[in-house]
Amino acid sequence: MNRNASAAPRAAEEVESYDHEVDVVVLGFGCAGAAAAHEAAAAGAEVLLIERAGGPGGSSALSGGEIYLGGGTPVQRACGFDDTPAEMEAFLTAALGPHADQAKIRLYCEGSTEHYQWLVDRGVSFNASLWDAPTWMPLTEDGLMWLGENSWPFDRIAKPAPRGHRPGTSSFGGWLLMEKLSAAVVDAGVGVHTDTLATSLVVDAGGRVVGVTARRYGEELLYRARRGVVVTTGGFVDNEEMLAQHAPQLLGHDKVSDGLDDGSGITMAAAAGAATRRMSVVETALSVVPGLIARGMLVDALGQRFVNEDTYPGLISHAAVHRRPGPVWTIVDEEGYESLDERERWGVRPHHVAGTLAELEQETGMPAGSLQATVAAYNEAAERGEDPYFHKAARWLRPLRPPYAAIDSRIRFHADRPERAGSTTGVAGFTLGGLHTTVDGEVLDLAGQPIEGLYAAGRASSGMHGENYISGTSLGDGTFFGRRAGRAAAAAGR
Amino acid sequence: MNRNASAAPRAAEEVESYDHEVDVVVLGFGCAGAAAAHEAAAAGAEVLLIERAGGPGGSSALSGGEIYLGGGTPVQRACGFDDTPAEMEAFLTAALGPHADQAKIRLYCEGSTEHYQWLVDRGVSFNASLWDAPTWMPLTEDGLMWLGENSWPFDRIAKPAPRGHRPGTSSFGGWLLMEKLSAAVVDAGVGVHTDTLATSLVVDAGGRVVGVTARRYGEELLYRARRGVVVTTGGFVDNEEMLAQHAPQLLGHDKVSDGLDDGSGITMAAAAGAATRRMSVVETALSVVPGLIARGMLVDALGQRFVNEDTYPGLISHAAVHRRPGPVWTIVDEEGYESLDERERWGVRPHHVAGTLAELEQETGMPAGSLQATVAAYNEAAERGEDPYFHKAARWLRPLRPPYAAIDSRIRFHADRPERAGSTTGVAGFTLGGLHTTVDGEVLDLAGQPIEGLYAAGRASSGMHGENYISGTSLGDGTFFGRRAGRAAAAAGR
Repeated sequence: MNRNASAAPRAAEEVESYDHEVDVVVLGFGCAGAAAAHEAAAAGAEVLLIERAGGPGGSSALSGGEIYLGGGTPVQRACGFDDTPAEMEAFLTAALGPHADQAKIRLYCEGSTEHYQWLVDRGVSFNASLWDAPTWMPLTEDGLMWLGENSWPFDRIAKPAPRGHRPGTSSFGGWLLMEKLSAAVVDAGVGVHTDTLATSLVVDAGGRVVGVTARRYGEELLYRARRGVVVTTGGFVDNEEMLAQHAPQLLGHDKVSDGLDDGSGITMAAAAGAATRRMSVVETALSVVPGLIARGMLVDALGQRFVNEDTYPGLISHAAVHRRPGPVWTIVDEEGYESLDERERWGVRPHHVAGTLAELEQETGMPAGSLQATVAAYNEAAERGEDPYFHKAARWLRPLRPPYAAIDSRIRFHADRPERAGSTTGVAGFTLGGLHTTVDGEVLDLAGQPIEGLYAAGRASSGMHGENYISGTSLGDGTFFGRRAGRAAAAAGR
Repeated sequence: MNRNASAAPRAAEEVESYDHEVDVVVLGFGCAGAAAAHEAAAAGAEVLLIERAGGPGGSSALSGGEIYLGGGTPVQRACGFDDTPAEMEAFLTAALGPHADQAKIRLYCEGSTEHYQWLVDRGVSFNASLWDAPTWMPLTEDGLMWLGENSWPFDRIAKPAPRGHRPGTSSFGGWLLMEKLSAAVVDAGVGVHTDTLATSLVVDAGGRVVGVTARRYGEELLYRARRGVVVTTGGFVDNEEMLAQHAPQLLGHDKVSDGLDDGSGITMAAAAGAATRRMSVVETALSVVPGLIARGMLVDALGQRFVNEDTYPGLISHAAVHRRPGPVWTIVDEEGYESLDERERWGVRPHHVAGTLAELEQETGMPAGSLQATVAAYNEAAERGEDPYFHKAARWLRPLRPPYAAIDSRIRFHADRPERAGSTTGVAGFTLGGLHTTVDGEVLDLAGQPIEGLYAAGRASSGMHGENYISGTSLGDGTFFGRRAGRAAAAAGR
């Protein structure tokens, strides 16, 4: 049975009575829903938050917790970095592009220091120390990290400043972010109904969204929303049917989600006339260790390099997975491997080791001579401290010497721990396309007009992203535009 | 004003009277509309075809006219090729993929010889001679051409047979195809209303599509369709707003269309609850001369080769435009350039000429040594008749010798003819995403259920295509699935 089968809107005329009536109903208790509910309540609205799981958190709570913030935050200043909204905007426009959403990016950057303070005021703290090397995620409590700002070509597009802000905990910090935000939501007086799955929108004869139908333990519930409904139900990476129609490039890969990102909110709104946008755009993470590729190189199945290996690994992953013939290999020498702290190796050991590159070519199936030519060109320029092809920073340039190792990106991190091994593509991702919204979270119809009473934020909507993704911009635009959507919904129809 | 503003469906209850009433209304008189209208009429339905332009043809009439046909057509057999539906299916699945539509491809291949005969019976003739070299389009009257079937990796996936069938005229043949099909439509008794723009669907209280509103010279017209409406209005490459939302990678490039592919039919149907599919997928053609790249090589901005230059140029274009850092350069030596018939050079002359590759690197901005390394590896293997990187066929392998030329793919063909010059990206394309349909052209809603009375085919629908495109598959699936949609509409509600 199709999972979207119940998405058709319910006509308000057919509703005899509602089980609950409030000003604003928010669907989904991830970071966007928390931000929307809090701000709607803070603006004086009576707010109910409906969550299908047994508690708050969603995919946000399972994430790394980085939030992309800048323009001169206290943490940036304490770490010695000047930053401005204009530099931040120039970076994000380039890094999230091509075809990023200029209007959303501009507002996001102009409001970033205020948004930082809002998070801090909700109890989210960031330590004033910098992790200064390429990584997916520092295994420290450093509150600041680079996300490609100091790498080519971005270092020529905008003045480099680190903008990855991390909640004060080591490793994954999404749980801490959501712990603070959900406490703030409850403090603000928002009602929360868990174990409650929204199933369709209730629409009146004039096309205005006036409520929601939901299901809890087999019982149907009807919610009336006097001012608006905010859809923050997440993306659709967990819906194979929607992936096949819109983002088939993620089929067969691992999913970055809590398992409940089935696109139900997107479909529900689309069935009520909402437009979608950029449904094919995805975030992609490949199992490459940033510290190892920075010290060595990354090559495709033909032994060709294709990127500066010291930039943000999400950009590297996107280029590798969607643009290059695979498998993609990390090539590193013994000195490079040994010089990386063991914890930063993420449990990865060399899959092939050889005294010559010719042997590695044979073991990995690369054309004879291909890797040798690539390494020769790399070494020759590295001697001079240059990378004329991809502009990796001089800090990471050093001629590679035998013995060499090749690491297969299809093998997941920690594969030497039997419980984490298993067959995989080495790729995980989530979806970035969704409902077409204004900067105030109003959901647009197919004619480009706002649908009255309907708002969206987070991964149920298309956010700032063009073709690419930078860590922290999903929690970032989810909370930032979630707040705006909550305020807009609270002010609607007054 | 938003061009989609009038797309919302009209409620049948509000319609007082119709101006015209027939069994089946077909929207758009390109190849898909012609095929649908003809077959609906042949099945005994009373059919009206509504076309916004002053006459038939649409983008189909401006196309090259190739139709992808195989499985053992008389033309294939006369040219000495055995072919089967299974070989054809294996090729199309690989060449249109990844993520091509398996069910549609299978039917298309199984029905291909019958479809060939249907076209011949409508007066479309194909000469039984083969053009045997890579090209966008032979400048001869040869009726058969290769579309990558004999190139790597397809030559290992399926037994090579040429399947590009061309109407019996030199150069662009779309006009001839449409001349024959439109005559057949009139002969079949289909009524045609030109200068008539469909503006919205008429939907009854049960959600069934029962008609269309349209506009002719400022006057609104209402059409009742007793059995069904078939949407064959084309893609959306001419709608900048829709491109920005769904396929921004085509923004700024030239358009392969008649200028009227504004997605109006897609939007009209979506506004009535239809699902769309693969809206980001596009056909892309780059200004590279197949005969020159086959004799030389194609490299990206870093001097790296990336494809076997003797495969179908549409696949080469896709890889170049969407996967490689540009600009992309054709590198050819004097012997290669001179050995190509002048007509096949499409008016392209070398943009840079040099006695050494180092000079060409400098003139084109490639990293020093990059092109030299690429040509050295190419020449060394070409001496042995091999291409271990990309497997270009031995027929085209020959070491390149000075003097060399570089040709900039951003400069359009015939740029030496002043009337055709001008600034351009060198890229042109059209959209392949659209309404989600069954193999019988039924349009599906967001729950995956057919919308009663609504059918679609051609580029208003998502066809056989995955990420890639092969010439002849748009006229091909437009006519093949257009016929099926017409028959299904004629049989509906009986």
